[in-house]
Amino acid sequence: MRMVDIILKKRRGLELTSEEIEFFIQGYTKGEVPDYQAAAFLMAAFFQGLTPRETGDLTMSMARSGDQADLSSIPGIKVDKHSTGGVGDKVTLILGPLVAAAGIPVAKMSGRGLGHTGGTIDKLESIPGFQVTMDNQNFLQQVKRVKLAVVAQTGHLAPADKKLYALRDVTATVDSIPFIAASVMSKKIAAGADAIVLDVKVGSGAFMKNSEDAFSLARTMVEIGTSVGRQTVALVTDMDQPLGFAIGNALEVKEAIETLRGNGPADLRELCIYLGTEMLKLAGIAEDELVARRKLEELLSNGGALNKFKELIEAQGGDPEVVENPDRLPGASSVYPVISDIEGYVREIQSEQVGVVAMWLGAGRATKESVIDLGVGVVLKKKVGDYVKKGEVIADLHVNENKEIAKVADLLRKAYVLQREPVVAKEILLGKVTKESI
Amino acid sequence: MRMVDIILKKRRGLELTSEEIEFFIQGYTKGEVPDYQAAAFLMAAFFQGLTPRETGDLTMSMARSGDQADLSSIPGIKVDKHSTGGVGDKVTLILGPLVAAAGIPVAKMSGRGLGHTGGTIDKLESIPGFQVTMDNQNFLQQVKRVKLAVVAQTGHLAPADKKLYALRDVTATVDSIPFIAASVMSKKIAAGADAIVLDVKVGSGAFMKNSEDAFSLARTMVEIGTSVGRQTVALVTDMDQPLGFAIGNALEVKEAIETLRGNGPADLRELCIYLGTEMLKLAGIAEDELVARRKLEELLSNGGALNKFKELIEAQGGDPEVVENPDRLPGASSVYPVISDIEGYVREIQSEQVGVVAMWLGAGRATKESVIDLGVGVVLKKKVGDYVKKGEVIADLHVNENKEIAKVADLLRKAYVLQREPVVAKEILLGKVTKESI
Repeated sequence: MRMVDIILKKRRGLELTSEEIEFFIQGYTKGEVPDYQAAAFLMAAFFQGLTPRETGDLTMSMARSGDQADLSSIPGIKVDKHSTGGVGDKVTLILGPLVAAAGIPVAKMSGRGLGHTGGTIDKLESIPGFQVTMDNQNFLQQVKRVKLAVVAQTGHLAPADKKLYALRDVTATVDSIPFIAASVMSKKIAAGADAIVLDVKVGSGAFMKNSEDAFSLARTMVEIGTSVGRQTVALVTDMDQPLGFAIGNALEVKEAIETLRGNGPADLRELCIYLGTEMLKLAGIAEDELVARRKLEELLSNGGALNKFKELIEAQGGDPEVVENPDRLPGASSVYPVISDIEGYVREIQSEQVGVVAMWLGAGRATKESVIDLGVGVVLKKKVGDYVKKGEVIADLHVNENKEIAKVADLLRKAYVLQREPVVAKEILLGKVTKESI
Repeated sequence: MRMVDIILKKRRGLELTSEEIEFFIQGYTKGEVPDYQAAAFLMAAFFQGLTPRETGDLTMSMARSGDQADLSSIPGIKVDKHSTGGVGDKVTLILGPLVAAAGIPVAKMSGRGLGHTGGTIDKLESIPGFQVTMDNQNFLQQVKRVKLAVVAQTGHLAPADKKLYALRDVTATVDSIPFIAASVMSKKIAAGADAIVLDVKVGSGAFMKNSEDAFSLARTMVEIGTSVGRQTVALVTDMDQPLGFAIGNALEVKEAIETLRGNGPADLRELCIYLGTEMLKLAGIAEDELVARRKLEELLSNGGALNKFKELIEAQGGDPEVVENPDRLPGASSVYPVISDIEGYVREIQSEQVGVVAMWLGAGRATKESVIDLGVGVVLKKKVGDYVKKGEVIADLHVNENKEIAKVADLLRKAYVLQREPVVAKEILLGKVTKESI
């Protein structure tokens, strides 16, 4: 088998065999297929597409390219969740404890991530003492004992995906739906998921800017899951404004604690309940949505979810006191209020712009080597639909260093789009894709 | 400027600026643009195509990527000829002396080439003593004095083309007409051509297998030439059978001498006259085809062309006696006649198959390191339209080593396609593309 023939076959629009896809992925992972052939293949596949069968094979080849977590010693159906990422997304911090409290074993491997703020792992590290690395045996034992463990993903999970992603990034082939879908699904499968709930964001602050692409990605991922024997459900959710109010690592942990306490922003709480409902159904813990929702709401109001978060912190060596006293989390030296110079109803908050502001304050990484300032960030005071008066505070900037703060405040101000007429905010849940619906 | 943006722009089907193309080509030549980005670009361009303006810019960028011959000290219009290559193509050996004798200064840089037989340079090296390397000053002086010099092309001419060609070969992007066209034209322009006559072969033995592709390539090259200020004419010619009778290095030199003497195979002679006619017109030496043809026919019959060839050999240190006594050229130790076991009219001679036979006998290079046997090859005895009787000789194999000769003879026999009904051979000239006709 020669890679040049595989490229030519795809270029001509023919369907590749499983063996050809395996040859490409394993060869590329080992360095036997060079970058330039992989790049030509990616571009040919961008134009000719991949069939559902090819996409399933690609996913499984990528999942097999490195270590594969074996969670079989943990009883129950392991349901994993994945979000395509958005500004202010602290869902894992809430959803993990919530569904664990409901009885789902959560063996979560998360990333650090580049971008506006850190990933889940960075956020957890803002809790003093919290350890994000652990050997495999302790990880499994903690899941059995606590029902919940969250560790940093190792580099050995789906290395083909890591290598391919880096290549796509520099060859203008990132926005290829089969490859995005295979990337997400291969990591979830390598991490040992029996069933998968996906949160596909759509909007100005998301990777998918329009509804059509978001649903297409959702369908492709559900198709993959179905074809490789993993029950998969995808929710398509709104990202036309940041999720919740807080953007920044410790600030998001505080908001997560508030939400676990039964309060928190409505959009964030609702999204967690929607996702949790699907997880409970896939795990066979709740027979229908009503039962699932009632259970989750109960766990948020009776302290069950919050206690589970505390247990998680304790199990991983962190300071559980942060739950009762969030001021023990890293903070900022000053808070700078951003004042509106106009008035009207908030029609949109450009999430990407808010993300840039958070990054500017030091909450995110520009390169792998950047050091995150865990205490800084943005707390929005107004969301879509709210009325803003001239001179009113629209957001607080939590700042540690003098960062040309007037300029940053101006950037944030520009993220707000106001209008004279009243606005009704979109529902957070825009749609759902299941095996039956595709 | 970033290469990833240039790839994306082409992927989206937008037209690149001259600066973007220059950035790609010079960056790639210097190694600043890596192979994987070039590969992604090539595949995107395969799908989206290049506009005539982009193809012209690509050609000029490639021509500028290395040394550029300066022929301005040679008086007159320098007209170069290029053939897309075929089996038995010894046209340069005839056409060079022929048009030089007619008054066109011929400063020819030729290649060795991989494939069935050697290139023009290998063929000339079968003449004892013939030197194919020469410094630039001597090269120019010889052109001024003799009107004709043929030297081996150096590696510094259009290095971008060399590097890109190697990449296209392993990324399934060879058969992209704009890149094929730019490759040919960039080398001719870097070699100093003021005007260019192209011989685009079509048929089983050619790179272009069908007429549509051949005319498309011809049009693209004429468009490039026109857009960069080089008058260009392309002839589309038949390669459904080898050109002439001889395939093999010294064997082809012998056939070239015969043709220069006014004899030689009709198809070869006609092709040289057609190409020469266009060259004379472009050089401004003949005002119309009739005048040009008459002049060329005269030079073939009065010894003028043959004498010019002799002058060339003398000027480059070779033995001019080979012209009168071709047996001084390298020969083969034995001649093996291939006998037909069927009968009928020759409908086709599969050129590629004949090329494989020549290669098998040692006439060509499989890899850059292969050593060519200059004396071996094939001499056809029958051409398309001829009648073959059972037991008649269809070709002679000129052999130096025992090379499983019966098997090779069988390969050659299979190259002949016979039929019961009479066949009229195609004209060698299938069409002509000029600036006015596109």
